Amino acid sequence: MPLTITSRDNERLKHAVRLLGSAKARREEGLFVIEGARLCMDALQSGADIREVYATEAAAKRYENEVQALFAAGKECFFLSPSAAARLADTKQPQGIFCVCAALDKQARLYTIKKECKILALEEMQDPSNLGAVLRSAEAFGMTGVLLSEGCCDLYNPKVLRASMGAVFRLPFVRTPDFEGALLELSANGVQTLAAVVDAEAQAITKLDLKGPAAVVIGNEGNGLRPQTAALCDKRVTIPMKGRAESLNASVASAILMWEMTKE
Amino acid sequence: MPLTITSRDNERLKHAVRLLGSAKARREEGLFVIEGARLCMDALQSGADIREVYATEAAAKRYENEVQALFAAGKECFFLSPSAAARLADTKQPQGIFCVCAALDKQARLYTIKKECKILALEEMQDPSNLGAVLRSAEAFGMTGVLLSEGCCDLYNPKVLRASMGAVFRLPFVRTPDFEGALLELSANGVQTLAAVVDAEAQAITKLDLKGPAAVVIGNEGNGLRPQTAALCDKRVTIPMKGRAESLNASVASAILMWEMTKE
Repeated sequence: MPLTITSRDNERLKHAVRLLGSAKARREEGLFVIEGARLCMDALQSGADIREVYATEAAAKRYENEVQALFAAGKECFFLSPSAAARLADTKQPQGIFCVCAALDKQARLYTIKKECKILALEEMQDPSNLGAVLRSAEAFGMTGVLLSEGCCDLYNPKVLRASMGAVFRLPFVRTPDFEGALLELSANGVQTLAAVVDAEAQAITKLDLKGPAAVVIGNEGNGLRPQTAALCDKRVTIPMKGRAESLNASVASAILMWEMTKE
Repeated sequence: MPLTITSRDNERLKHAVRLLGSAKARREEGLFVIEGARLCMDALQSGADIREVYATEAAAKRYENEVQALFAAGKECFFLSPSAAARLADTKQPQGIFCVCAALDKQARLYTIKKECKILALEEMQDPSNLGAVLRSAEAFGMTGVLLSEGCCDLYNPKVLRASMGAVFRLPFVRTPDFEGALLELSANGVQTLAAVVDAEAQAITKLDLKGPAAVVIGNEGNGLRPQTAALCDKRVTIPMKGRAESLNASVASAILMWEMTKE
């Protein structure tokens, strides 16, 4: 029977709260927090290394099967009083289920995901909800993997995890300090690199042959791709637009490009 | 020279704050509030009826041309002290420019937008950021107009206006209490009505001939289309998905469907 943590000042709880709020702490310790029955089950089913499980008594009743499975899998398990659970909750209506997981060992090497691949490469995508939505779309469209620049929002940010609907647990990804080098390596290995730009002079995504290996490279929400990054891609591509709209929402633009790369 | 409102309890300011926060007040008075230089200029350039303009002194310096143009167009104009402006701001970093506009006279009749049209029909889309994003995409892809059920989020909600990037001012729309009747009328007039569903048995959007007049009908974010609504559409369509993703984000799914209807 797991112990119950009732104090909001419990050291273990405070440690989990710190992981929830700090990308630095997550990076240094190689741990992150997930919340909610569905996301925790996604972690379990994807073989994530679940170090700690926390659940309220109410959650253990309401999500009986899930909490049993998580308690069986977690290395250390605890019940939380409602007030202790409230400290760890990042959502408005928390379900009272949380796990602390080890950072995913999905950091596939580029060369393992480059054959016949469709890669999504993100440069400095900083909004966590955008990043999560983009990962969700990437999984739904069957992208092979995701390449992220160091400047991207932390993948283990609670908003990213939530918006990704668990895709973080299933999509291979590489986070690299040498984003430009990685793009050049892809190109040298026969993966067509496509810089997504807002520019009516660029090639329309509808006019390209996207059958072979390809990587679409998408920039920051506000500023787009850095010109020097776009310059080292094989092609510049754009989504033709009508009306007076100047651009699309970043997660929508990413989705359209991935859709065109993968649809059958 | 416009008067300056310094009191946070000024009656006129309180009236605008009420419009900002209450869909009921907006509906009863036929007025709504917009914020920011860009959105206010969108309103002006789209011929919106600008009843009141508010700007801080700082905004009048920083956005000199915009504030001059808005002061010239607005029926009543005021400077706001910073603390008065803070009451009216709905964003984290307000620019200090606001307009009160009359509800748009864009409520195009269905029969005026039905020839060779591509219509987006939304049933109970309730998240304002989703609705705004969908309208932004609809404009970018050149959709003819938007049909909304009464249960949709208020178009004049500040979050909708902001996420739409001004598309609300330019896209024809109809909000109707008889959504089902409107769909039947479209169908009877030769507009193919397509119920968007998450169902691998439905027709893939990629396999349909979408050249003629068509309306894509999209449901609530959490629950999808009501079955009785889907049943009275001509066809059920779906976006083929891979991996373990169960669905797409509502604004992404809407964008993919509109893209397939309109791309050239």
